Amino acid sequence: MSYITFNNVYYLGPDGSNAENAMFKFLDVCNIKIKNKIPEKTIKSAIESILSDPDSICILPIENSIEGIVRETIDNMLKIEDETIKIQAETSIPIKHLLLSKSKDIRSIKKIISHPQAIAQCSKYLYKNFKEAEIKEVSSTSYAAQKVSLSDDKELAAIANEASAKIFNLNILSDDINDEKDNTTRFFILSKKSFDKSKNGKTSLILGTKNESGALANILNIFAEYNINLTYIDSRPSKKKLGEYVFFIECEGYETENKIKAALQNIKEHANFIKILGSYQIYE
Amino acid sequence: MSYITFNNVYYLGPDGSNAENAMFKFLDVCNIKIKNKIPEKTIKSAIESILSDPDSICILPIENSIEGIVRETIDNMLKIEDETIKIQAETSIPIKHLLLSKSKDIRSIKKIISHPQAIAQCSKYLYKNFKEAEIKEVSSTSYAAQKVSLSDDKELAAIANEASAKIFNLNILSDDINDEKDNTTRFFILSKKSFDKSKNGKTSLILGTKNESGALANILNIFAEYNINLTYIDSRPSKKKLGEYVFFIECEGYETENKIKAALQNIKEHANFIKILGSYQIYE
Repeated sequence: MSYITFNNVYYLGPDGSNAENAMFKFLDVCNIKIKNKIPEKTIKSAIESILSDPDSICILPIENSIEGIVRETIDNMLKIEDETIKIQAETSIPIKHLLLSKSKDIRSIKKIISHPQAIAQCSKYLYKNFKEAEIKEVSSTSYAAQKVSLSDDKELAAIANEASAKIFNLNILSDDINDEKDNTTRFFILSKKSFDKSKNGKTSLILGTKNESGALANILNIFAEYNINLTYIDSRPSKKKLGEYVFFIECEGYETENKIKAALQNIKEHANFIKILGSYQIYE
Repeated sequence: MSYITFNNVYYLGPDGSNAENAMFKFLDVCNIKIKNKIPEKTIKSAIESILSDPDSICILPIENSIEGIVRETIDNMLKIEDETIKIQAETSIPIKHLLLSKSKDIRSIKKIISHPQAIAQCSKYLYKNFKEAEIKEVSSTSYAAQKVSLSDDKELAAIANEASAKIFNLNILSDDINDEKDNTTRFFILSKKSFDKSKNGKTSLILGTKNESGALANILNIFAEYNINLTYIDSRPSKKKLGEYVFFIECEGYETENKIKAALQNIKEHANFIKILGSYQIYE
């Protein structure tokens, strides 16, 4: 078996984060070996790190099935000027929330801490089971788990994932407490080295439309004319003026395929700018 | 001058919030009189309050020029089952961040608190002027101002708006410190009573596309065929499955206009569902 090797992998930490879980999956499915794993404090700093360290990879969350697009990822990818850094693969991981504590008795819990999104995603469970409990927001689920592990308070619990339960040696008081059962996050891996592109390809791009009636419809029609299936479209503010947008678009197929090449050529004439973020294989 | 009168107005508080500023502007431009203003803790609870209180209005932020769509607003508007509650008007207000303190000397400031978005939107200013300061996140800009007003710490400052400076009697140490100067938020007003629709109209809707190639392009083409200008499009997860979306679309014109009526009729045949959020006048 041949491996792709890198010095460093950058991702949104801390230890036990969902990005770290995605990273371990990427290492496995893409046959990657790395020397150091470097958890970053923000998505922005993870992207900045790969820019100054070419022999590295970076793991980025792009979309959650409940929350939608991860804005910090898309806005910062748009700013990357080095055109050799591309998305090389995509995978998804299920997001499962668990109730973790030093206590073994769920009836002792009177205070629960977690990231605001995790609290929101478990609100029905919390309302049903912990109507009287004090709920407090902290900066991440893994930090919540760490905080519980450092406290001796048997009334305190964290909402966090299974990796955090192991890392911080906490008891699982309740399993899979998400309100919506299909809670999944999609991740990208970025690198300068090209990965395997033998099957199941997709292309991601960002474009700005001209300020004229029907501009976006014209561009979507070009994809339809060439029989290219769009899998995602989202708008982001241009950040210049309320009412000016750029579009993040994903379609099936590699940019090296003839029909994609022809469509993109055609679209260039109708767009203000177009930036290909990558053409890559999907690992289910 | 004739006024539209209501019992209560619900909006995201606390006192001095940007939603409160937008509310005062709406009262003025739409000739509204209200008995009570009720600041709510979340956008969700503001929407829930109007559902159970028909003689009321609700003020909602829908889009910021830097951050994009306000997800909590759009996701909760999709859930409103009462079809008589509609968007009745739109306006925009500039978002200006100021540095506020009890101290009158900017050189004394060593700790700055604010909402994470406000901190992010002033990051260049903070980096240039307060590289050594301790920066701490709190739940809202108005709460930051309140916290500064309750403390005797002359090293402490808040990033908040001008209304908060007045309400909490703080000194303005630095004016308009946003990195991007065009920082604007768009707001809706919701009510059961219909407002003036004499000029400058727009229609907002949410629709689900059929799961087939070119489905969104087909719908956008219908708008183009009827010569209807789209002013906004954004996708939101259906929250059922990663890869399933609904689209939030805004177009110029009132739903009572013939071409809009015809286009919507046509679109109904191509969409899974369509929900008109309102047809309303824009107040610049």
